[in-house]
Amino acid sequence: MPARLPSDRVAHHFSPIDEEVAKLLELKVQLGGDESRHQFTLKTAKGTRDYNPKQMAIREKVFNTIISCFKRHGAENIDTPVFELKDFDIAGQYDPMIPDAECLKIVHEILSELELGDFRIKVNDRRILDGMFAVCGVPDDKFRTICSTVDKLDKMSWEDVRSEMVKEKGLSEEAADQIGQYVSLQGGMDLAERLLQDAKMSQSKQACAGLTDMKQLFSYLQLFQVTDKVVFDLSLARGLDYYTGVIYEAILTQTGPVPVAAAQNGAGEKAEEGVSVGSVAGGGRYDGLVGMFDPKGRKVPCVGVSIGIERVFSIMEQKAEASAEKVRTTETQVMVASAQKNLLEERLRLTAELWNAGIKAEVMYKKNPKLLSQLQHCEDSGIPLVAILGEQELKDGVVKLRTVHSREEIDVSRAKLVEEIKRRTLDV
Amino acid sequence: MPARLPSDRVAHHFSPIDEEVAKLLELKVQLGGDESRHQFTLKTAKGTRDYNPKQMAIREKVFNTIISCFKRHGAENIDTPVFELKDFDIAGQYDPMIPDAECLKIVHEILSELELGDFRIKVNDRRILDGMFAVCGVPDDKFRTICSTVDKLDKMSWEDVRSEMVKEKGLSEEAADQIGQYVSLQGGMDLAERLLQDAKMSQSKQACAGLTDMKQLFSYLQLFQVTDKVVFDLSLARGLDYYTGVIYEAILTQTGPVPVAAAQNGAGEKAEEGVSVGSVAGGGRYDGLVGMFDPKGRKVPCVGVSIGIERVFSIMEQKAEASAEKVRTTETQVMVASAQKNLLEERLRLTAELWNAGIKAEVMYKKNPKLLSQLQHCEDSGIPLVAILGEQELKDGVVKLRTVHSREEIDVSRAKLVEEIKRRTLDV
Repeated sequence: MPARLPSDRVAHHFSPIDEEVAKLLELKVQLGGDESRHQFTLKTAKGTRDYNPKQMAIREKVFNTIISCFKRHGAENIDTPVFELKDFDIAGQYDPMIPDAECLKIVHEILSELELGDFRIKVNDRRILDGMFAVCGVPDDKFRTICSTVDKLDKMSWEDVRSEMVKEKGLSEEAADQIGQYVSLQGGMDLAERLLQDAKMSQSKQACAGLTDMKQLFSYLQLFQVTDKVVFDLSLARGLDYYTGVIYEAILTQTGPVPVAAAQNGAGEKAEEGVSVGSVAGGGRYDGLVGMFDPKGRKVPCVGVSIGIERVFSIMEQKAEASAEKVRTTETQVMVASAQKNLLEERLRLTAELWNAGIKAEVMYKKNPKLLSQLQHCEDSGIPLVAILGEQELKDGVVKLRTVHSREEIDVSRAKLVEEIKRRTLDV
Repeated sequence: MPARLPSDRVAHHFSPIDEEVAKLLELKVQLGGDESRHQFTLKTAKGTRDYNPKQMAIREKVFNTIISCFKRHGAENIDTPVFELKDFDIAGQYDPMIPDAECLKIVHEILSELELGDFRIKVNDRRILDGMFAVCGVPDDKFRTICSTVDKLDKMSWEDVRSEMVKEKGLSEEAADQIGQYVSLQGGMDLAERLLQDAKMSQSKQACAGLTDMKQLFSYLQLFQVTDKVVFDLSLARGLDYYTGVIYEAILTQTGPVPVAAAQNGAGEKAEEGVSVGSVAGGGRYDGLVGMFDPKGRKVPCVGVSIGIERVFSIMEQKAEASAEKVRTTETQVMVASAQKNLLEERLRLTAELWNAGIKAEVMYKKNPKLLSQLQHCEDSGIPLVAILGEQELKDGVVKLRTVHSREEIDVSRAKLVEEIKRRTLDV
């Protein structure tokens, strides 16, 4: 795997994320000192990090987004944000670029839903890289080392990369310059078509196979409507020991300042208008790799997605800190309150009605809480709605539904209350 | 804690469940040998158990049911099925029986939703037990040992319990017989009222405080509509070193054969018509216990719920094995299929439309799959709906929506497809 991957990412696809999940699940939320109504206490395994409720809420949001995206795409047995599409049926009219396109669609969905900021997904293909090195005159035994130098292009200038190839690695200046022309190319299906006509590139059978598949990939990406973010980039050279076909990497781009955590994580940044804050997801095709686990030794086509969870968490936490918006630590949709005394029983009855209808509802555990303190609790913990009961409302068979944010109040008939709460909290 | 709790339950509230969660999250699903379309591979920590996709699906269902119930009740920071309600506001007109009632409501909701079979939730109160022992003439220093004998009543006959109290523990026969009369009592609010009038019981201030609270608890349980399953049972004597007020324990009751796993777990069974298959949830109030963590040393009122996860898993797995119904390992709502050739692009376009609308959709990765093999995949993996595209449907702007179970097919306009799929898969 390339050296630039930050330490929280996948050296091997699986283990570091397992660790993260284990950390997440061995959390301790300290007793006391928190004004929240409900608390959950857990024994912490030694040496694991503690998170506060806001960090936990962010982490849960990230996991939920990823997991629901995976499920939307037919996933089973989800325990961790590592996702692999395996094409169980190799024979027949199997078309490998469909699952590859689905992986890119998944990354597109997850990064869009997390609202991390603008992003690009670079794609390339191992066969195109290998073919390019061959036609540029790189000796076979230098493919690997030249490839790892090319991989530094996102944090080093071309001049420095060229110098490393020529002076340190003994490549001819001519070969280096030819590589330089190719790796500066970015585009879409058009670029793949152009390269198929390219006098040099078209000499390599490998490159042609990769470019033909790249065209096919972009045709599927168009159907999936994700070509706005996907760029065919010949400088992308990740994990070549591992991947056998398509490779891709998603990076966040933003014109504002680079988040501290992202920079600290050792991400590469380009001195461009769109500053890269480093890779947040990546993957590729690694046909044959897992074949060793197959009892019959068959070559198993596989394409994977991995998400840089720690990187995503850091960015989300910083965005939350920078924004005025409160991070909610519960999902409560409505607080059942009363303006008058002696309505505890009516409050509890209504709360149970809401629970039974699947509404996330809270009620104060006091016999006669002040309306102001009930409303204050909603403000503090971000509960969007208050269902207020009073003698008059009970007589009329209605509930006063208050929107905390706007302070607007409307009377809703008891029969329509559940529907109205669901309608107003669709995004909660 | 009483000896009858099976080993997967809570000797201390937290750690065994952590272990279970860790196990769950360190699963490995073996590569190969499975006909499923998507696979997820994880590194397994040494010594942990592997689960197959069906077991995983059951486990996920159990966790999801518990977690969504906890969230409905305002939970934050959920990492494990351990739930505690802490009453952050001790001063003022605080009424402790409200959170106690909410805990019982939570257990009622979870056991109902899991459809484990019929259940009862026994409640008692430490103060009622202590008061009862006092008025029956049990010496103070024998409370604890006599209590642990009473706790065996769910697996021993009264004669054996009486004999242990008198012969082994040196209690007078008169005291034992008086205890025997009380511990045979079961009821609801009526029983609490009757005991408040009881010549002996009413002599104990402690018992009277417990009985008054029990009446209050049942009044809230009536508002929450859960009194059908809750029984005030004077023989319940769990965890008396730990709990300070209300205690409760949920048991499954069934007239059929006792599941093997439940019996193996060492659960107590009564030789009655309603055979107990042992405790699946429990908890109680333990005011003051956590005070040691409070920096100011305050007494912190706390009431907790814990779920016997391993027990629940065993029962669910056996029910699934016994039933003809398939356990689904994915949540896919619809398969996008075609009856004719050359419709791959149309299938992909429609699939992306559905993904973008939040529908869980699958499509075959072949250019021209046979309709029969597409339908067979739905049968095999329990996908309830198929959206079938053909030349005619494309011309008419409709999709043929097939219900796999009934084989019924209707034409749905493309504009209404998402809504129709959502309507038909509400329970998926």
